[in-house]
Amino acid sequence: MEPRDLEAYLHEHIPISGHMGIQVVRADLRVVALSAPLEPNINHRSTVFGGSCASVAMLAAWSLVLMRVRDAGVQARIVIQQGSIDYLTPIDGAFVATSSSPDEAIWTRFFAALNRGRPARVELTADVESAGKPVAGFAGSFAAIPIR
Amino acid sequence: MEPRDLEAYLHEHIPISGHMGIQVVRADLRVVALSAPLEPNINHRSTVFGGSCASVAMLAAWSLVLMRVRDAGVQARIVIQQGSIDYLTPIDGAFVATSSSPDEAIWTRFFAALNRGRPARVELTADVESAGKPVAGFAGSFAAIPIR
Repeated sequence: MEPRDLEAYLHEHIPISGHMGIQVVRADLRVVALSAPLEPNINHRSTVFGGSCASVAMLAAWSLVLMRVRDAGVQARIVIQQGSIDYLTPIDGAFVATSSSPDEAIWTRFFAALNRGRPARVELTADVESAGKPVAGFAGSFAAIPIR
Repeated sequence: MEPRDLEAYLHEHIPISGHMGIQVVRADLRVVALSAPLEPNINHRSTVFGGSCASVAMLAAWSLVLMRVRDAGVQARIVIQQGSIDYLTPIDGAFVATSSSPDEAIWTRFFAALNRGRPARVELTADVESAGKPVAGFAGSFAAIPIR
């Protein structure tokens, strides 16, 4: 799955991601980075609405699971089970949420479960930056459920 | 601030809330309840995108702080500092996020800080339901910072 394919997938299947102006900056098995501009995500203080920031971070992490599952050729639906976000400072411009892969051992265990036909779980994080500075930190639990 | 005024405020100042189809079901000093339909918030599984669910829950709690601050006649900006959400089950229709006020003692302390010109903090929750069943639970920390 190429970055442009991921972007098209997100905009087609999760249309609010298009309204948020989400673009795929990088998408491979190591890192998914999604950007969004301020304007469609603006709030009453002319900074980024916290819900948009959480959505972009969540989608970066979710997309990393998608990249891994597609690469493995596994049929599974990927759902978020829990998410939390810390806001460090108001975001007054475009921002990027970057989710980096944990150790490969995590994925080995993840796919071992899926390949036995069982739901697999993984904890991922996403760091949100704006103008090169950290602005928020996201952590979430995701499950992949095999499609029979 | 009447429910229709809150709805207009959200749609004008946080335009993505309009794209999400957020409507104010109830808004007073005890409870803020916000609803949203499935369609604009749909995901790849034809259920509600987790980021939309988090956004609506977050805005319900944030709006409760706004209602309190406006009622008290205090000038303050209200920001979210931390948020977490547990997803209980996929949401396959319209949903409502309801944030209920904590004990009055919490607000007494909150406004005591603000009235001394200091930032005030409050922890709020929002319960998300769809078709009368609980589907997600949100908790967040909000700060109100006096505007001098």
